[in-house]
Amino acid sequence: MLVKESVAVPLEAVQAGIGIRWLLQAADGAPTFAMRLIEIEPGVVFKMHQHPYEHEIYVLEGEGVVVGGAGEQRMAPGVALLILPDELHGYRNLGKETLKFLCVIPNQTNR
Amino acid sequence: MLVKESVAVPLEAVQAGIGIRWLLQAADGAPTFAMRLIEIEPGVVFKMHQHPYEHEIYVLEGEGVVVGGAGEQRMAPGVALLILPDELHGYRNLGKETLKFLCVIPNQTNR
Repeated sequence: MLVKESVAVPLEAVQAGIGIRWLLQAADGAPTFAMRLIEIEPGVVFKMHQHPYEHEIYVLEGEGVVVGGAGEQRMAPGVALLILPDELHGYRNLGKETLKFLCVIPNQTNR
Repeated sequence: MLVKESVAVPLEAVQAGIGIRWLLQAADGAPTFAMRLIEIEPGVVFKMHQHPYEHEIYVLEGEGVVVGGAGEQRMAPGVALLILPDELHGYRNLGKETLKFLCVIPNQTNR
């Protein structure tokens, strides 16, 4: 068993105003998938992108939108999202607080 | 893209005082893993058990302990936990509120 306080996991910069904490991943011994915490500051846009693996997302804090194949959807605490492999998607923080969500992906050979 | 409000997903009984919401799973088109929300009522014990797949857990609400191969560990909001395949583990709610945590597992052929 491995236990981590999420706030003690380093916040790595993705770009200005967007950070990621790799809570649990292959390097920790996780066999199948990785759990990350994404943090997007107010007003910041995570631009549209795609990749060949899925996301399972759970929104923890803040308010925003995710844009994907099904159009624009609200992100708020308690919302769960499945973004499919190769689906174009992006995020925008529309609130006054940091938008925080868990984002689980299958293990990759490269981060 | 699939979007769900977690509170709108049915809470299925595991045993008295313990429920599970299958937020995202193979039946939703999730390719690799399933995200579930576990809810344990105050004073309730989820007895020790084991299975051949891992858990990645993120505690959302409440206070409790998880017992596993590394002894007893505190569960509180923001704590992330990796429970390895075949590791014995169980949970106890030690607080006054419902203990709620996400628990991600690889897809199984049987639920």
